[in-house]
Amino acid sequence: MPHFPSPGDKASLEEGLLFTPKFDRDGLITVVAIGAEKGEVLMVAHMNEESLARTLETGEAWYWSRSRQSLWRKGETSGQLQHVVEMRTDCDQDALVIRVEVGGDGGCCHTGRHSCFYRVVKGDNGGPARLEKTH
Amino acid sequence: MPHFPSPGDKASLEEGLLFTPKFDRDGLITVVAIGAEKGEVLMVAHMNEESLARTLETGEAWYWSRSRQSLWRKGETSGQLQHVVEMRTDCDQDALVIRVEVGGDGGCCHTGRHSCFYRVVKGDNGGPARLEKTH
Repeated sequence: MPHFPSPGDKASLEEGLLFTPKFDRDGLITVVAIGAEKGEVLMVAHMNEESLARTLETGEAWYWSRSRQSLWRKGETSGQLQHVVEMRTDCDQDALVIRVEVGGDGGCCHTGRHSCFYRVVKGDNGGPARLEKTH
Repeated sequence: MPHFPSPGDKASLEEGLLFTPKFDRDGLITVVAIGAEKGEVLMVAHMNEESLARTLETGEAWYWSRSRQSLWRKGETSGQLQHVVEMRTDCDQDALVIRVEVGGDGGCCHTGRHSCFYRVVKGDNGGPARLEKTH
């Protein structure tokens, strides 16, 4: 049984007050996790219906791991659980932003960094673009 | 001819300084646009190789419109051009965050709002989840 109603027409999607998340052909929706206090982008990941339903039920972020093809309770092994303070959806309800308080050491990235976005892309100037680490 | 080198091994992806963006099977990469000053999430969209190359060359955000299946110079008709102040990629180089200064009236969403994330998802409490508009 589906956890969420099917997406309606354009007007309902954009201005409606019923949550009808749009999953892609793999059954996934894109999720941006941001820090609860400062709003910095921590990571971009995906949820399927089941993980989104669990996230809403438990108040903790559950994702779908595309590499492992399994439900992924964020922080289960690392202690970096994500307590969801707020969830938002966008105009066509095919993306989510969750504002999270992070448990454990407060980190998010599996490389040990606070955020997964630790490298800046520097313009190509005719050659291949380079990355600069910020931390 | 491809615009970007192919992704390397896990170590190169995560710790390397060469930009090797990973496009999905549709040739797309997920992009989160955030406001230049406050860092608030404005929109989530996609770029293909060509639009990413143009974005790096011109300093203006170009996306790939999945609904129109065409290159999309953001703001071309609305005036809401996005000047890219900074671009970041994540640990596995399959997502981008761009920090943008928005032209025109400073808006971003086609519904006329500043951000596409104008609705908060309220937990289900056993029933279907509801949305609350913030603006």
